[in-house]
Amino acid sequence: MASKLSANSYGKSDVRLTKVVREGKTHHLAEYSVNVQLTGDFSPAYLDGDNRKVIATDSIKNTVYVVAKENKFASAEDFGILLANHFPNFYKQVKSATVEITEARWKRIKVKGKPHPHAFVNGGTEVHTCTVFVPKKGKPPVIHGGVRDLQVIKTTNSAWKDFWTDRYRTLKDTSDRIFGTSVTATWEYGTLDADFAKCTEAIRAALLETFAVHPSLGVQQTMYEMGTVALAAVPEIKNINFRLPNKHRIPFNLDPFGLKFEGDIFVWTDEPYGDITAFIERE
Amino acid sequence: MASKLSANSYGKSDVRLTKVVREGKTHHLAEYSVNVQLTGDFSPAYLDGDNRKVIATDSIKNTVYVVAKENKFASAEDFGILLANHFPNFYKQVKSATVEITEARWKRIKVKGKPHPHAFVNGGTEVHTCTVFVPKKGKPPVIHGGVRDLQVIKTTNSAWKDFWTDRYRTLKDTSDRIFGTSVTATWEYGTLDADFAKCTEAIRAALLETFAVHPSLGVQQTMYEMGTVALAAVPEIKNINFRLPNKHRIPFNLDPFGLKFEGDIFVWTDEPYGDITAFIERE
Amino acid sequence: MASKLSANSYGKSDVRLTKVVREGKTHHLAEYSVNVQLTGDFSPAYLDGDNRKVIATDSIKNTVYVVAKENKFASAEDFGILLANHFPNFYKQVKSATVEITEARWKRIKVKGKPHPHAFVNGGTEVHTCTVFVPKKGKPPVIHGGVRDLQVIKTTNSAWKDFWTDRYRTLKDTSDRIFGTSVTATWEYGTLDADFAKCTEAIRAALLETFAVHPSLGVQQTMYEMGTVALAAVPEIKNINFRLPNKHRIPFNLDPFGLKFEGDIFVWTDEPYGDITAFIERE
Amino acid sequence: MASKLSANSYGKSDVRLTKVVREGKTHHLAEYSVNVQLTGDFSPAYLDGDNRKVIATDSIKNTVYVVAKENKFASAEDFGILLANHFPNFYKQVKSATVEITEARWKRIKVKGKPHPHAFVNGGTEVHTCTVFVPKKGKPPVIHGGVRDLQVIKTTNSAWKDFWTDRYRTLKDTSDRIFGTSVTATWEYGTLDADFAKCTEAIRAALLETFAVHPSLGVQQTMYEMGTVALAAVPEIKNINFRLPNKHRIPFNLDPFGLKFEGDIFVWTDEPYGDITAFIERE
Repeated sequence: MASKLSANSYGKSDVRLTKVVREGKTHHLAEYSVNVQLTGDFSPAYLDGDNRKVIATDSIKNTVYVVAKENKFASAEDFGILLANHFPNFYKQVKSATVEITEARWKRIKVKGKPHPHAFVNGGTEVHTCTVFVPKKGKPPVIHGGVRDLQVIKTTNSAWKDFWTDRYRTLKDTSDRIFGTSVTATWEYGTLDADFAKCTEAIRAALLETFAVHPSLGVQQTMYEMGTVALAAVPEIKNINFRLPNKHRIPFNLDPFGLKFEGDIFVWTDEPYGDITAFIERE
Repeated sequence: MASKLSANSYGKSDVRLTKVVREGKTHHLAEYSVNVQLTGDFSPAYLDGDNRKVIATDSIKNTVYVVAKENKFASAEDFGILLANHFPNFYKQVKSATVEITEARWKRIKVKGKPHPHAFVNGGTEVHTCTVFVPKKGKPPVIHGGVRDLQVIKTTNSAWKDFWTDRYRTLKDTSDRIFGTSVTATWEYGTLDADFAKCTEAIRAALLETFAVHPSLGVQQTMYEMGTVALAAVPEIKNINFRLPNKHRIPFNLDPFGLKFEGDIFVWTDEPYGDITAFIERE
Repeated sequence: MASKLSANSYGKSDVRLTKVVREGKTHHLAEYSVNVQLTGDFSPAYLDGDNRKVIATDSIKNTVYVVAKENKFASAEDFGILLANHFPNFYKQVKSATVEITEARWKRIKVKGKPHPHAFVNGGTEVHTCTVFVPKKGKPPVIHGGVRDLQVIKTTNSAWKDFWTDRYRTLKDTSDRIFGTSVTATWEYGTLDADFAKCTEAIRAALLETFAVHPSLGVQQTMYEMGTVALAAVPEIKNINFRLPNKHRIPFNLDPFGLKFEGDIFVWTDEPYGDITAFIERE
Repeated sequence: MASKLSANSYGKSDVRLTKVVREGKTHHLAEYSVNVQLTGDFSPAYLDGDNRKVIATDSIKNTVYVVAKENKFASAEDFGILLANHFPNFYKQVKSATVEITEARWKRIKVKGKPHPHAFVNGGTEVHTCTVFVPKKGKPPVIHGGVRDLQVIKTTNSAWKDFWTDRYRTLKDTSDRIFGTSVTATWEYGTLDADFAKCTEAIRAALLETFAVHPSLGVQQTMYEMGTVALAAVPEIKNINFRLPNKHRIPFNLDPFGLKFEGDIFVWTDEPYGDITAFIERE
């Protein structure tokens, strides 16, 4: 019985880069975690332990820092494009490169109401994400932006009713529930020349505002509306992909204590959670 | 060989409460994780499995929700006082009660620049903490407020030099380094009548602003200054306790690549970290 | 500008099931976290908030428990097959169902050297995984088994040398390094009638033994060998897929202290890590 | 308004050490995360930024590796004693030192049924812990050993009944429930000359066996019995301290589906959890 190597890739993950750009007294700060994955002519390493064409993952790590040093860039996406192009351009043996970047949301600390030139506070669990895929030397990169773990909640204007009834249903219809979720969304750019940082903020604002004002009949419907508004707001993107966990807030049963539930006392939960996805494109 | 029970306590931890207060169209949202620990006359349960005086932890959990339902409160601290007093007041067999609360920092989503009445976004890893300890029925509670995982960074105005030299030292003096930390601080209130929510915001602002503007000669010095400014800003507190991890940003060695480090390219790290504490009191 | 819904799915995730089977005095324990994702005729919920065909994720959760109650099964895979078939069989509006299961590795506690009939200890981070995909009512399920976070390390018999040299390389060749990783592997079954629990143990043993004895010239080569041995050992599987992080142990630089590195003192690290993949099939 | 520095300490945390001892073909592997905290004459650093007596936390980190290199030791406790003594012995300005060590439980991989000389597999979340406190130069260290996150479960032989009844109680008596917990225990040694590794294994076995066979009337009672048996088994320890979360398995309500609960179908939960402590001494 023999076996064959049908696919392979490798790279370095969680390369942690801090870059400070000093523009006079004003400093700009970017902190990324970078993953690089390469495909190419690497099967001899798997089959025979012949590593001669393998770029050590340590060298890939070094490259992340050197490319950050030698270039100016305005966003994680712009850095991702530089880095993802580098590998197939520099190495004959590399076919494709995928660069994934996770970016912390550092914001300037306000001192007496004014943003400080070099001190920052972190917005927390929410991160900006992007992925740049260069399929082959000379081919245009495929660029995705995204947001992960953007936690939101609305305490009303959300219903869940008229759904399928059968033996397995125990949940009652409700016209007024809490809707909490942690938004993970990715979107694909249709152009290389976008102002990516500006697009990210515009999409994020569209997602937040639509979540807030939409009269929700279900996670599915609100998710579709969020995608539709984001696509309308930012022509630079072609599509948007969502995965929304429904982080249930369960009414606490006050009956045994002679008290009445008035939309006020809930148990917040992490699990189990409804897990809803959609892929929405421009028509 | 015999053994004895020298101390014991028990309770329920991570009780997850969502409370919505509906003030017309404006909703107020609080989400807490609550821990309750009791001491008292419970040794028969340990020694003989005699549970007759033991309040089930499930009943403790129910109490959290019922007290939340039956009372109005303006802050986690005010809720903690109500809850911590409840146990020694209601149960003869309870001596002391300790209530620990962790509160998520939900902020209103802005829609067209205005805070939305019922939709919120979460500021992330940072949480507000408080602990209320009632040592005995009728005794005044001991109240601590706090902040946990408030992540901050400054890219300059921070030195680390002239420290002890011996065989184990390899670190060089630096006059300009990045200073990043995740602030965990707790403070003790000297009064029961504080506006706790306002105090929390004032202390948080004092910590952030002092971190930003202080010309730092070391984590120790900046920590002491942060405490001094907080104590001056908020007379309601008696002392403040810090634990600051020094989340090192390490200059990336660019020499092998013929490039020069200019305070620009760093490796951000989680570990190992300097771990600095201080307890600062009003004189 | 209009948008369209190009794809969608939904379900319930992290449904936590404990099942105890009582066979006289001997109890059998299984603890699963179950994810269910469905596709089908659900676009009206997204487009119009019309939920009439939507099975609530709460009902999906109930189904997990009811199917566990009403059936006997010998492994997570067998339970997954029952559950994944249920949805397209029971609901006209469901097209495909995907069931993902994560299973804790409970082992019997030994008392005086003998396995206890009803007390268990957990093997920890390592979990057994499986995925069952039913593409359509009546179609045979696609079954994957797997292992996640199986942590292993070998302190010698591992080299990394003769790799590509260029401007970005700083790492030296080594003939003797530590090789540590956390094995995540999935494999596809070629039959519905396997004894899945037995196959899982046989593959796990093949992975562990091959890791231990293989003279490693690189993660890539050892990974390929592990796959080859697993395929040879268990004819019931068609292919195996690996993702191995290289959890680097970095020699600590003892030079400044006048001491010599002798393959003895290392820094263990989580990040950055080499990240190596392969997909290996039977020829 | 002035402030004063009432207490302070500092050190380095999460220093990650791998030590390999090569005894011919047989290798011994230890992996520790080490925290060091010092007190002493360090207030000038806080008050004036005068760092001249401060040992940089980077130097503390170096010391961990150098002490590991220059000494032989048989357990984390023995290493902790060496390291905790070093600081007050070597530095005039250091008063006390506390060393906390967390140790991974690597076990040898079995190849053809025999333990392999240099390949290991990790038992998972469970870790061995120890703390060594040297209060002052020349004083004997205070040594604690421990275990953390030792997950256990028993499916029967556990009751919870006859507890306090009042308005807040909704839980019914049960004579047969699942009892699951994650054992965290620490114990204090009464001697410096113990075989610490052997003691750790004996206490761990006593905890596991007692958990398995004890007819439990409550977590409190079983915890006390576990402590009593451990104290009897290992004369080298003076006391034992427990914190046991009650990781509830909640019977799933099968009534709506016309099915009967037979001690078989449960929801496993992380939160909220009963949180029970005891401190048990030798009489």
